[in-house]
Amino acid sequence: MSDNSIGEKLRVTLFGQSHGPAIGCVIEGFPAGFAVDWDRVRAFMARRAPGQNAWSTPRREADSPEILSGLNAQGLTSGAPIAAMIRNTNAHSRDYESLRPTPRPGHADLGAFYKYGTHWDIRGGGPFSGRLTAPLCFAGALALQWLEKPDGHGASPVRIAAHITRIGSVRDAVPNVTHPALPLYAPGDFPVIDPSRGEEMKREIEAARRDGDSVDGEVRCIAAGLRPGLGGPYFGGLEGKLSQALFAIPAVKGVTFGDTQPRGSENNDAFCIDDALPGGIGAATNHCGGILGGISIGTPLYFTLSFKPTPSIALPQQTVNLDSRTETALTIEGRHDPCVVPRAVPVVEAVTALTLMDAMLMNGR
Amino acid sequence: MSDNSIGEKLRVTLFGQSHGPAIGCVIEGFPAGFAVDWDRVRAFMARRAPGQNAWSTPRREADSPEILSGLNAQGLTSGAPIAAMIRNTNAHSRDYESLRPTPRPGHADLGAFYKYGTHWDIRGGGPFSGRLTAPLCFAGALALQWLEKPDGHGASPVRIAAHITRIGSVRDAVPNVTHPALPLYAPGDFPVIDPSRGEEMKREIEAARRDGDSVDGEVRCIAAGLRPGLGGPYFGGLEGKLSQALFAIPAVKGVTFGDTQPRGSENNDAFCIDDALPGGIGAATNHCGGILGGISIGTPLYFTLSFKPTPSIALPQQTVNLDSRTETALTIEGRHDPCVVPRAVPVVEAVTALTLMDAMLMNGR
Amino acid sequence: MSDNSIGEKLRVTLFGQSHGPAIGCVIEGFPAGFAVDWDRVRAFMARRAPGQNAWSTPRREADSPEILSGLNAQGLTSGAPIAAMIRNTNAHSRDYESLRPTPRPGHADLGAFYKYGTHWDIRGGGPFSGRLTAPLCFAGALALQWLEKPDGHGASPVRIAAHITRIGSVRDAVPNVTHPALPLYAPGDFPVIDPSRGEEMKREIEAARRDGDSVDGEVRCIAAGLRPGLGGPYFGGLEGKLSQALFAIPAVKGVTFGDTQPRGSENNDAFCIDDALPGGIGAATNHCGGILGGISIGTPLYFTLSFKPTPSIALPQQTVNLDSRTETALTIEGRHDPCVVPRAVPVVEAVTALTLMDAMLMNGR
Amino acid sequence: MSDNSIGEKLRVTLFGQSHGPAIGCVIEGFPAGFAVDWDRVRAFMARRAPGQNAWSTPRREADSPEILSGLNAQGLTSGAPIAAMIRNTNAHSRDYESLRPTPRPGHADLGAFYKYGTHWDIRGGGPFSGRLTAPLCFAGALALQWLEKPDGHGASPVRIAAHITRIGSVRDAVPNVTHPALPLYAPGDFPVIDPSRGEEMKREIEAARRDGDSVDGEVRCIAAGLRPGLGGPYFGGLEGKLSQALFAIPAVKGVTFGDTQPRGSENNDAFCIDDALPGGIGAATNHCGGILGGISIGTPLYFTLSFKPTPSIALPQQTVNLDSRTETALTIEGRHDPCVVPRAVPVVEAVTALTLMDAMLMNGR
Repeated sequence: MSDNSIGEKLRVTLFGQSHGPAIGCVIEGFPAGFAVDWDRVRAFMARRAPGQNAWSTPRREADSPEILSGLNAQGLTSGAPIAAMIRNTNAHSRDYESLRPTPRPGHADLGAFYKYGTHWDIRGGGPFSGRLTAPLCFAGALALQWLEKPDGHGASPVRIAAHITRIGSVRDAVPNVTHPALPLYAPGDFPVIDPSRGEEMKREIEAARRDGDSVDGEVRCIAAGLRPGLGGPYFGGLEGKLSQALFAIPAVKGVTFGDTQPRGSENNDAFCIDDALPGGIGAATNHCGGILGGISIGTPLYFTLSFKPTPSIALPQQTVNLDSRTETALTIEGRHDPCVVPRAVPVVEAVTALTLMDAMLMNGR
Repeated sequence: MSDNSIGEKLRVTLFGQSHGPAIGCVIEGFPAGFAVDWDRVRAFMARRAPGQNAWSTPRREADSPEILSGLNAQGLTSGAPIAAMIRNTNAHSRDYESLRPTPRPGHADLGAFYKYGTHWDIRGGGPFSGRLTAPLCFAGALALQWLEKPDGHGASPVRIAAHITRIGSVRDAVPNVTHPALPLYAPGDFPVIDPSRGEEMKREIEAARRDGDSVDGEVRCIAAGLRPGLGGPYFGGLEGKLSQALFAIPAVKGVTFGDTQPRGSENNDAFCIDDALPGGIGAATNHCGGILGGISIGTPLYFTLSFKPTPSIALPQQTVNLDSRTETALTIEGRHDPCVVPRAVPVVEAVTALTLMDAMLMNGR
Repeated sequence: MSDNSIGEKLRVTLFGQSHGPAIGCVIEGFPAGFAVDWDRVRAFMARRAPGQNAWSTPRREADSPEILSGLNAQGLTSGAPIAAMIRNTNAHSRDYESLRPTPRPGHADLGAFYKYGTHWDIRGGGPFSGRLTAPLCFAGALALQWLEKPDGHGASPVRIAAHITRIGSVRDAVPNVTHPALPLYAPGDFPVIDPSRGEEMKREIEAARRDGDSVDGEVRCIAAGLRPGLGGPYFGGLEGKLSQALFAIPAVKGVTFGDTQPRGSENNDAFCIDDALPGGIGAATNHCGGILGGISIGTPLYFTLSFKPTPSIALPQQTVNLDSRTETALTIEGRHDPCVVPRAVPVVEAVTALTLMDAMLMNGR
Repeated sequence: MSDNSIGEKLRVTLFGQSHGPAIGCVIEGFPAGFAVDWDRVRAFMARRAPGQNAWSTPRREADSPEILSGLNAQGLTSGAPIAAMIRNTNAHSRDYESLRPTPRPGHADLGAFYKYGTHWDIRGGGPFSGRLTAPLCFAGALALQWLEKPDGHGASPVRIAAHITRIGSVRDAVPNVTHPALPLYAPGDFPVIDPSRGEEMKREIEAARRDGDSVDGEVRCIAAGLRPGLGGPYFGGLEGKLSQALFAIPAVKGVTFGDTQPRGSENNDAFCIDDALPGGIGAATNHCGGILGGISIGTPLYFTLSFKPTPSIALPQQTVNLDSRTETALTIEGRHDPCVVPRAVPVVEAVTALTLMDAMLMNGR
């Protein structure tokens, strides 16, 4: 697969760097004749925009996408590639070149040096910037809407929602995911099950910020209503297809599907009749997370992603000067998100939607 | 990607079902002129063969591969696809058709029904059978040997070794992975760091067997010596490429790269000079697991896979009869591995080797 | 795409060398539940087997394929990959190594040297051998049967037939291809429209043989009944998808779709009502060959392939010795086909069937 | 492959419709650190712009591309995707919807109806418009420059030039292509060998225009200096890879590689010593067009493309009304190119460059 594109029938290509003229995406294979609700798209993208909450960076980004192609004269999707672009307007171009010899710990700088030499666009993290999650969310917003339309694609509606399950040492009370009509956690900008745990989590983030540090966390994502039979054995499995896309999200370091129990007698989900599910067969415990043998079985699909703490911290660090090849101290300037998790929630939904929509289109629905 | 093939320059296609005439693989893109040590290949494949240890199934398989193509008259690789086949000889063909209406919990049966209808080869799990890991190990054995040859491919030698880090509630004492010259855990058939923990783990497996149950576990895999600069941002990341392949291994339910710490100040690896590493730059703590920004940085790459407990247990279970659509009891007959983890260790090394070799070939080394 | 595999949903991987243990293929994505007529498969493969006609080589090949995987207990396709193998039994292993320094003009030898060095399997042409068209025909035979089954795949039946349109300077009288119920030229082993032209063609071949030379020719292939709407603009076009596969056939040097006329007024096909066609719209002249804008329109799809004369001729030639880097004479020994065209006819049908079946599966039918 | 993207390491995605906001492309995998000569890019793109010559349409397009991403602060390529966009500014939006029920003969309209229903963007041909060759030329212009830089990519410089070999019944005197230092035909906007034939060709075009008709033609493209060893047997062949891309060019109906002679004794190219060629081995006659066994051999690569006459003619035609399903007359309004060939010349060079650059990058040079 390419660095910047993914998918087989529904293919998404990202472009852009943090301080370049624009960022954007091209979506190939989106079915024709679909009426996108653009207000909902903008609202979805706003969930990741910084400067909106107390716990994120004040850098304001104008995230309003401009559609360059893909719609017909009536404003419906035409079947041709949908290209969208977002101008970069709020980027302070400092002296980034002076930073080139000293890769920041935890960031992509060192890897970028090895891969691209000294030519990669280092300004604001260039092509590694979390800003690229904006066009990713744009594309995902369209997929989320398509997935909800049963008559449109002939299968049951699919609803996707992610929520925060852990920040640092604070864990939410997380119920099992067994039934499709589970409450979809309100897409508020800090979605948790237990509000008091949510408040503790925000205090964890604040504590990290005061310390000039950062903190890690986890997000769980649920896709309810997915038709059974998608995926396949071995290399065709849904877990592999999803993981390939999910690890594209910056800061993701792990994924776990379902909720594995130590003993087979506990972990095996007993099958039962459940007419509310596509397929009509349910799994009372659904520890398998909706996937068995790499194939969806109709019960809610869910997985948990673990995110590393934001690499940009105010505390002094050590690096190596790439020119002199000597160890040297480094302190990162500016204000940075102490935790990427709240902003990542819509990105997780977006990537999941794109991947499942592609799986459905490859399957012929 | 296809159900049964993976890779871009080094492409592997698997074929076969548990009770079909044969299983095998085709490897495209393996460089010409390589002298494979076939004894080592057979020894590697034997590490996964059942009937060899006390904690696995007594079904004996003749796993000796027959090479169908790919070698030249001198016995070296020719650059043409290498096809290998293993005859299925030790399969009891019972009355599997009578089992078709009652999908076994935790197995692929239900998903296979949704995907293929009633035509999938149900005998012994058909194309979902763990037996397919034999040709996967064959292919991986070749990649492991190629990776070790620095002069052959122009980069530093890459050594890959996996070991068991957890069985049930028993955890091994797992040191950090920071230096390339780490001891590669002896590929004995139960590789652990602390032998006493290893004995506890075997007792966990036995306890599960006595209970007619099964138990889960984890495997950590280390790839030392990987050249820096492989992978890329977003969809090009090494974690995504590896995950896509690793989830093909039966029973894998999760993967975690590196060893994430909760606070950025702890998690960020300070860079330091280390001439023993490709690139010459090391990370004293290497919590990032050798990958930053989706790109290898030259420090040891490592990740941990979690495996679910074997679905086949002797205890009675509940399923749904697909014909009558009623819930019914089910008891699985025969003797089954109470834990897949020990047999999975070489499979993890094999899949890792294939993926990293493909990444190197795509990179031009 | 890989050297040896092609396709997206229906993926075919070839393996084997002329003098290796076996040749074969793996077919991924063939739908489950299909009853293959194996007698027809063998009959189809026999159309390409040498030693059957006066105008081909007497080397006898046992082309009976052995199925290694893919079928279920009832003998139907199971949805898992279908692997088939043909043992190489009738190959004289001469001293091929002595030929390595002197690449044969018109053959792959020089290119193989550049690509693989001195390690490629040179015996009998190795992986370049026309013998690899046997497994290609095996795979194509399955696709041809699937395409014929309207109820099986929900679209109209597709029938594919190729015929010889030119040998050397002798051209067949070739009628326009406009109607689906055109007579499918009997798959006899020298299919032409005008039998007297066919006899002239055979005399051309004999003349070339007597001269110790070889002769070129052309084959036209027709696919009638293909549903409209397959393909797409620009890189999605059916011509590109077909060409990518057709140029894999040894000796193909050109392809022309349809029957282009010099003036637009003649070349543009007027559309008309034709209920016998899928879509119900026909093109009276069908110069477009069933494809407009890269998309099938329901009229018969046809194209013409041009084949170069067999490179192996008895006449003395000149080459360069790769070791001494001096020009030197070369005379090829043995008896060789003076014309590849008659044997290529089923191969053309096979490749066309595989490509169109893949296009249909990618389209969801 | 997707409808709108192609390539493996160097991947190009097109977007845009004739009357949409913008057209453009995204190029992934272009090596970092390259200094593009943007004046040359604009000059190259101008070769295809209409309204520049007497024999093309007066519709003026502002083809100046705006770079959205991919460059670093120094203006060099950064290794990240290069996205470029061209605003559509000179499109008369007439009442295209009234044309939807009557597909124009020879155009993509009917196929688009079958594929997309009534939602495809019909204005100006939508995603099928020849206007999309502008971003294709942009991408190709970059590849052409990269190919010329021997030190930059470690192989010999590759020079690509295409010229018109036929318009209607007028054929240019076309010499054989044997030597790398052949004169590259001046990229003037009507490149031919014999100027007097060129004048006859222009008169053919004029005659067609006066008749309210259109005329067909052929273009030959030469790539000199390509390193040997690119491509592979069967599905890996260079002809297949090139064809897959070349048929994306609107109006292409055929491709022939090299210059096949009827007899093997004439067609086989004798190999000879030629130090001016990469590889040092030449083919005196080079009828093979630089490719044997699907692999480049170092002699000039060349092929001929045949283009159909422009479908848009002023003469009355017949079509079918898709709503009433009755045959009806149709006359196309507006002024149109009577021949696509002169404008296609740079497009052919562009597509060839993109494909060969991808082949080199996949080969590791």
